[in-house]
Amino acid sequence: MRKLLVIGIGTGNPEHMTVQAVSAVNRADVVLIPRKGEAKDDLAEVRRQICARFVTNPETRIVEFDLPVRDQSGDYRKGVHDWHQAIATTYRDLLQAETNEEGAAAFLVWGDPSLYDSTLRIIERLKGLAPFDLSIEVIPGITSIQQLCASHRIPLNKIGDPVVVTTGRQLRDGFPAGVDTAVVMLDGECSFQHLEASAFTIFWGAYLGTKDEILVEGPLSAVGSEIVAVREAARAKHGWIMDTYLLLRRSNS
Amino acid sequence: MRKLLVIGIGTGNPEHMTVQAVSAVNRADVVLIPRKGEAKDDLAEVRRQICARFVTNPETRIVEFDLPVRDQSGDYRKGVHDWHQAIATTYRDLLQAETNEEGAAAFLVWGDPSLYDSTLRIIERLKGLAPFDLSIEVIPGITSIQQLCASHRIPLNKIGDPVVVTTGRQLRDGFPAGVDTAVVMLDGECSFQHLEASAFTIFWGAYLGTKDEILVEGPLSAVGSEIVAVREAARAKHGWIMDTYLLLRRSNS
Ligand SMILES: C[S@@+](CC[C@H](N)C(=O)[O-])C[C@H]1O[C@@H](n2cnc3c(N)ncnc32)[C@H](O)[C@@H]1O
Ligand SMILES: C[S@@+](CC[C@H](N)C(=O)[O-])C[C@H]1O[C@@H](n2cnc3c(N)ncnc32)[C@H](O)[C@@H]1O
Repeated sequence: MRKLLVIGIGTGNPEHMTVQAVSAVNRADVVLIPRKGEAKDDLAEVRRQICARFVTNPETRIVEFDLPVRDQSGDYRKGVHDWHQAIATTYRDLLQAETNEEGAAAFLVWGDPSLYDSTLRIIERLKGLAPFDLSIEVIPGITSIQQLCASHRIPLNKIGDPVVVTTGRQLRDGFPAGVDTAVVMLDGECSFQHLEASAFTIFWGAYLGTKDEILVEGPLSAVGSEIVAVREAARAKHGWIMDTYLLLRRSNS
Repeated sequence: MRKLLVIGIGTGNPEHMTVQAVSAVNRADVVLIPRKGEAKDDLAEVRRQICARFVTNPETRIVEFDLPVRDQSGDYRKGVHDWHQAIATTYRDLLQAETNEEGAAAFLVWGDPSLYDSTLRIIERLKGLAPFDLSIEVIPGITSIQQLCASHRIPLNKIGDPVVVTTGRQLRDGFPAGVDTAVVMLDGECSFQHLEASAFTIFWGAYLGTKDEILVEGPLSAVGSEIVAVREAARAKHGWIMDTYLLLRRSNS
C-alpha cells in the first residue's frame, strides 16, 4: 500500500512546522511541491525553504510539479469539479512515477489541511482513479486564524461564546446570525465594506507569519478605508496578497 | 521590561510543538506549569514531558505552581471574574519571585492560546495589578479542532461554506443558524442528544493526539448512544475526559 502524508506546514513562518511534521517529511520517499505560477512564487518558496531546512533524510527526494489550471470561464461548481479531477489525475501519475508500492509521498499543505483546502477532497477522488491502494495520514498545522490571533495577541472567542469562520463571499450577504465574532478568509475584495461600520471592531492581518506581515486593528469605521488602501498597495508591491480578519460586534451596538 | 511568552503546546501529542514553540521555551528564564489537581494530572504530565524533551537551555528553570480554585457556588460570571483575578495575582507573585526586570517567563497553553482559553484575558488583568511593565508574545499551537479533523482525515468545512465553533452549553439551545457544520467543545454532557438525530452526521474524538485517543463517526442516529456509553466508560477509567466533535447537517435533511 502506498502512503500519502498530508502535512500542514503553517502559514508562512517555516518555524510553524511541528515536530510531528518535521518527522513526517523525513518519512516520505518524495515530497511533492506544486508550482502555482508567478504570483504565488513566494508560497512555493516557503515550501522550498521548509524542505531545505527540515528534510535531513538523504533518501527523501523533493519533486516540483505543475498544478493544472482552473477553467474560470463557465459554471463555478463544474469548473472546480473538473479542476479537482485534473489534479487527482496529476497526483496519480506522480505517485506512479515517483513511489513504489510500499512508498510514501508527502503533500505540504498551507496552514492546516482541514481549513479551506481541497487536498483531502482531491485525494478522495484519487482513490477512485488510482490502480493502487492508498493509506492516508494527516498531520495538523498552524492556520492563518491562529497566527492572526497570535499576532494581535487576542483571543478568538469571548468567554463561552461561539465563533463563525466564513468567507468574503458569504460575508457579502451580511454578518452571520447568532454570533458576535466572525473570522473571514478567502476575501478578495474587503467585503467588510458591506457591513455597518459603526457596529464592528476589526483585527486584520496580511502575509501573517512572514517577514512582510501587516497588522491593522481598530473600530471598522476608523480603520476600514485604511485597510482597503494598505491592502491595495501591498498587493501591487508583492503581486499577490493573502489576508484574514476577525470582526467583533461592538457591545454597545 | 519583563517578557511573557504565551506558548500553544498542542493538544496532547508533545510532537504538536512547533519549531517556534521549542525555541520560545528555551528563550524563557522560567517555564510556569500549573498543577490542576488529581483529575487533570495527565495534562500536567504532558507539560512535564514537553519540558523534559524540548527544554535544552540549562538556564531555563521549570516551576510548578498551584492554580487558585474556582468558586462554583454563586453567580457564574462573578465566579469566573474572581477566579481570573486570583490567578492574575498568583502570576504577579510568581513573576516577581522568579524573573528579574529583563527576564522572560513562559506559559504553556493547551492547544492554541486563542481558543477557549483565558490566559490572555488573565494577562490583561495582570497588567493592571503588576508594579512592573510587561511585553507579551504569543506563539500559536495546534488546536483540538485540527487534531479532530486530522484523526478523522476530514475537512472542517464544505467548499466555501462557513463553520461555527461553539460549546455544549450553546448547542443545547439548538444547532447554530445559517451553517451546516459546527464544531462543539467544552461539552460535559453529550449535548448532541438535544438535536434531531436523523439530521446530522457526527465525527467525535476524545483524548485527541494522545495514546488514549478514541474516535467514533457516523450518522448521529446510529452512533449517538454509542458515544454516550464510550465517553462514560472512558471518563470512569481515566478520571477525566476531553472530547470535541464535528456535526454535519445531512444534505438530504
Ligand atoms: C485556500 S485558504 C487556505 C487556508 C489554510 N489552509 C489555513 O489553514 O490557513 C487561503 C486563505 O487563507 C488565509 N491565509 C492563508 N495564509 C495566510 C497568511 N499567511 N496571512 C493571511 N491570511 C492567510 C487567507 O484568508 C486566504 O484567502
Ligand atoms: C478550555 S478548552 C481549551 C481548548 C484548547 N485551547 C484548544 O486549542 O483546543 C477545552 C476543550 O477543548 C477540547 N479539547 C482540548 N484538548 C482536547 C483533546 N486532546 N481531545 C479532545 N478534545 C480536546 C475539549 O472540547 C475541551 O472541553
